[in-house]
Amino acid sequence: MKAAPYPITDPPKRSHSRGLFEREEVRLANRNSGMLLEMLRHDVTPAGLHYLLIHFDVPYVASAEGWTVKVGGRVERPLTMTLDEIKSWPQRTLRVTMECAGNGRATVEPRWPSQPWHHEAVGTAEWTGTPLRHLLEKAGLGDDVVDVVFFGSDRGFDSGEEHDYGRSLKPAHAMSDDVLLVTAMNGQPLLPQHGFPLRLVVPGWYGMASVKWLDRIEAWDRPFDGYQQVRTYVYKRDEHDPGIPATTLRVKSLMVPPGIPDWYSRSRMVDAGLVELFGRAWSGAGVPIVKVEVGVDGVWQEATLDPAPESRYAWRGWRFSWDAKQGAREIACRATDADGDTQPLDQRYDNAGFGNNMVHRLMVTVR
Amino acid sequence: MKAAPYPITDPPKRSHSRGLFEREEVRLANRNSGMLLEMLRHDVTPAGLHYLLIHFDVPYVASAEGWTVKVGGRVERPLTMTLDEIKSWPQRTLRVTMECAGNGRATVEPRWPSQPWHHEAVGTAEWTGTPLRHLLEKAGLGDDVVDVVFFGSDRGFDSGEEHDYGRSLKPAHAMSDDVLLVTAMNGQPLLPQHGFPLRLVVPGWYGMASVKWLDRIEAWDRPFDGYQQVRTYVYKRDEHDPGIPATTLRVKSLMVPPGIPDWYSRSRMVDAGLVELFGRAWSGAGVPIVKVEVGVDGVWQEATLDPAPESRYAWRGWRFSWDAKQGAREIACRATDADGDTQPLDQRYDNAGFGNNMVHRLMVTVR
Repeated sequence: MKAAPYPITDPPKRSHSRGLFEREEVRLANRNSGMLLEMLRHDVTPAGLHYLLIHFDVPYVASAEGWTVKVGGRVERPLTMTLDEIKSWPQRTLRVTMECAGNGRATVEPRWPSQPWHHEAVGTAEWTGTPLRHLLEKAGLGDDVVDVVFFGSDRGFDSGEEHDYGRSLKPAHAMSDDVLLVTAMNGQPLLPQHGFPLRLVVPGWYGMASVKWLDRIEAWDRPFDGYQQVRTYVYKRDEHDPGIPATTLRVKSLMVPPGIPDWYSRSRMVDAGLVELFGRAWSGAGVPIVKVEVGVDGVWQEATLDPAPESRYAWRGWRFSWDAKQGAREIACRATDADGDTQPLDQRYDNAGFGNNMVHRLMVTVR
Repeated sequence: MKAAPYPITDPPKRSHSRGLFEREEVRLANRNSGMLLEMLRHDVTPAGLHYLLIHFDVPYVASAEGWTVKVGGRVERPLTMTLDEIKSWPQRTLRVTMECAGNGRATVEPRWPSQPWHHEAVGTAEWTGTPLRHLLEKAGLGDDVVDVVFFGSDRGFDSGEEHDYGRSLKPAHAMSDDVLLVTAMNGQPLLPQHGFPLRLVVPGWYGMASVKWLDRIEAWDRPFDGYQQVRTYVYKRDEHDPGIPATTLRVKSLMVPPGIPDWYSRSRMVDAGLVELFGRAWSGAGVPIVKVEVGVDGVWQEATLDPAPESRYAWRGWRFSWDAKQGAREIACRATDADGDTQPLDQRYDNAGFGNNMVHRLMVTVR
């Protein structure tokens, strides 16, 4: 603990590793919290169980009083809007399944040193807010705008670069009815860690797009080149690959682990006989889930899908009656969406472990 | 992921390690969530930020309807009580700072493989419930009772031993007015992960005593020998030491990290000049905090204490104006309680990393 400080403005280059984990990875796992998989039972993830990825610190906002969001750059009318004004516009509530682009990073080999998620960086919430387009229409986007940029009030360093957290959307996307300026989650004011008092929610996209603690919006006539837009959240084969930006959620399914766990290993014991498996499946940008299969020791059978969710952005339940036979068993689940996309059996490699949607496998002992 | 399952009924013996972390430790860090230290600003920890240590799975309780708690063993009148009956008794609300006995384990060397907390396993909540003694008086504890045992409805394995989570209190302690049967946290029904619909809260003790998802109470005429009572949560020099059970919180203080962080290392950058440091301090069993000192590069000065909290179980705020000079700095905080107990400069060794209350140190760069 008494080591010289990390040279924050010129940190050593991080590199991939295999096997054991660095203390920095563990510290991040302590800070960032995931959904307990047994909580997949809840249609809407209870408060405090929705996953959280906090890049810097949660800003301390004692009161929403006085919070404003500035709109500037290539707009006809630069604005400073209060929360009351924003809340006076038409409100919508959307149920959205949100996932971290880095979910599953901890099993991608070799592993990029960052938040070491296994499966838990997901959650479903009801977000209430006003469509962002009301604000953009009031400001009037210039014809030459190519990116609408959103900055949070959270600030820090990454790889030596100091910046406010910022992400951008293309104007047409930003003007869609489903991109919301959100003030409430599950019928309650936003919790501090979820962006109180104001955040963006971009349904169907990985969570990095949904900027929290929204401070200002800038209309740019050139592509946004902020750290969080171009230096991370990009799928790359290796560090030299220019890559493809991560956007919408890849098709995925998870299951409530059956039986009871061992504290340390999280291995599971299941009683032989009929076991009612339950899980959830989702895909990005509102593409419906059309099939979930359950694999038992490599033999796949179709699960029963719950009725399609009312919100096209919400996960869909699935069920499977498993006649569990004694012995060591591997159970797995695999979803397919209406575009024909399905989960791979093994993780696809990504340089920083983004977008890992391999099937969820679980080893259990049946007694 | 395809390895043979961990032999859950006869697992390999765990052993201490140094340096890098096991995947099992990271999985536990993913499951169990800590308080973000910047949230020390809040007198009461916001929902979802109070630390959570979940030994097994969170039981799925769709509704509180029908939940009962059984009272049996050496009592005059065995009972099955409904929640409505319990709620009809006199209610109390107590503000309590709760901490995990394993907080700080990740820096104890050599390190016991378990949940690898650094500093974050703490939180303060307002718990509302009825004193447990009302229930025990109704049942009538026998004269020969030596332990009152509390079982949750969570079940699993630890070190090969299958058990319901269970802990005990001595009868005199169980009959104190401050040990509560709790149904609400911060004015809301308990969240699933905090013990919905009913839990025990034992103020001033480490969190393992506050049994969640309370299912039954048993009065024993011999000492309770359950796994969570005798095989863990015991301070030991080594595995052969019979040890001393962990009970009340040791004196401790933490600070809101000043400045802004680096994403990966959590190193911090602070602007030179006056920096208002803020933190919290607490001790166990209601012993008041009488002093907090701040150390800058090893030179200690007294901080200013906020007014004593109304609840003797709640943490106390402290402040210190630090004139930060450019360069690499180490800042630290150290609390002393009314018993004269103070935090050690280095962690005291414990075989399983319990009760680590060494001073909170932070390396920062001042620019």
